[in-house]
Amino acid sequence: MIIIGEKLNGSIPSIGKAIAERNEKKIRRLAVQQEEAGADFLDVCASVPEDVEEETLKWMLDLVQEESSLPICLDSPSPNTIVKAMQYVKKPGLINSVSMEGEKISKIFPAIADTRWKCIALCSDEKGIPATAEKRLEVLDRILAEADKYGIAHNRLFIDPLVEMLCTSEDGIATVMETIRGIRARDEDVHIVGAISNISFNLPARALINQAFATLAISAGMDAGILDPLNRDMRSAIYAAEACMGLDDYCMEYIGAFREGLIGPLPKE
Amino acid sequence: MIIIGEKLNGSIPSIGKAIAERNEKKIRRLAVQQEEAGADFLDVCASVPEDVEEETLKWMLDLVQEESSLPICLDSPSPNTIVKAMQYVKKPGLINSVSMEGEKISKIFPAIADTRWKCIALCSDEKGIPATAEKRLEVLDRILAEADKYGIAHNRLFIDPLVEMLCTSEDGIATVMETIRGIRARDEDVHIVGAISNISFNLPARALINQAFATLAISAGMDAGILDPLNRDMRSAIYAAEACMGLDDYCMEYIGAFREGLIGPLPKE
Repeated sequence: MIIIGEKLNGSIPSIGKAIAERNEKKIRRLAVQQEEAGADFLDVCASVPEDVEEETLKWMLDLVQEESSLPICLDSPSPNTIVKAMQYVKKPGLINSVSMEGEKISKIFPAIADTRWKCIALCSDEKGIPATAEKRLEVLDRILAEADKYGIAHNRLFIDPLVEMLCTSEDGIATVMETIRGIRARDEDVHIVGAISNISFNLPARALINQAFATLAISAGMDAGILDPLNRDMRSAIYAAEACMGLDDYCMEYIGAFREGLIGPLPKE
Repeated sequence: MIIIGEKLNGSIPSIGKAIAERNEKKIRRLAVQQEEAGADFLDVCASVPEDVEEETLKWMLDLVQEESSLPICLDSPSPNTIVKAMQYVKKPGLINSVSMEGEKISKIFPAIADTRWKCIALCSDEKGIPATAEKRLEVLDRILAEADKYGIAHNRLFIDPLVEMLCTSEDGIATVMETIRGIRARDEDVHIVGAISNISFNLPARALINQAFATLAISAGMDAGILDPLNRDMRSAIYAAEACMGLDDYCMEYIGAFREGLIGPLPKE
């Protein structure tokens, strides 16, 4: 599982406050902590008005890159901001995100075409999130056609099937599971990514639902997650799911993570 | 999920000791505790030599049935003992178990044929546990043919796909998952049951693997588990998995269980 650490996001109230106060220490600490906990990418999202977004991202990116050599996941709703902020990122990372909505692809794909940048692509378009897996896969086909047009190899794409909240669903996670399986069946090379904790919105004991969903999504073929790497229970669930799915020969990764103290119940004090 | 409480089993050292010492209090307490925790059946297994098994089971069954009105899961490796001990069970319960090995079916199926007793049936035979899902399903076919011969409706059968330890597996849980899906594809009426904790034998932090496996087995169609109902994390994982699988409309069971304090993190003291 490729872990995209989600903590450096201004839409989280405590981070929004740290950004507003230019609290360097808090930003630096979260970069270090997420790297130590096993993150593969560090998502950086300012979540501020677009007129100050570029400078805010530059401030965050400078701090994060001083503390960690992990690749950055550059996160903004604005394709213009993303293209401008790429210059502050020291080595090719991951863009979060494009979809078939508006100018996202037409602005971002040319900017990454001849680079080693990777890109998250959501299976949604102008009309929002399609209700069925079939329609989401139609959007995927259009995204892949655009990628081909720009010569972007499919293994540079992280396809997001779109994780919606369970509490209002009529069929549980059936739609997103069908979408994940459909993505994998269509293309062996793309990564499949999801914002795991979206599933448990408005439910109590969210961690339980997040862990069950991560387990099931991994079994369907999801190989990357936008999540909190500091959450020990989620990390434990991912190692256990990968062991169960035969992605971990003789459970050696699982046993190693346990021995290093990364997973499992914390020792009693 | 139909929960078969596994705690009253003489092969668990502390219970073996309680049986040897005829410690009534311990047996009674585990019956009550498992019922309160949501068990649907109480497994009762003496795990003593066959010459004293019937009397030991009678002693356990009398105590358990004084404390709880839950149906009994009558558990012995000996079909003779099972048939004899059925007289001490006040109302039809569940037999644990038959397989295509030896005289199990030929002794037990006639004894339950014209009753409302249910029966666990393992997909194994004289040669042990078949290595492939295909071979296990062939055993299932033979079991179902025997059930039909005795007029035992398929919804009285709890088919066990046989859960083996993950740590020595070459393909993770693929074989048992394929067997579960195969059972459900062959027959919509049978229950599918498993001894969940077998999966994590010889691994550290067993609860993590047990929970991941339970989640995945439920997604494949398992609807009954032999497990420790007192384990809060396992109970939490089952409720979360059922909510994810759309088996719990609008997560109402999940939310209810949380409100009753049955699942989720324990409040800090």
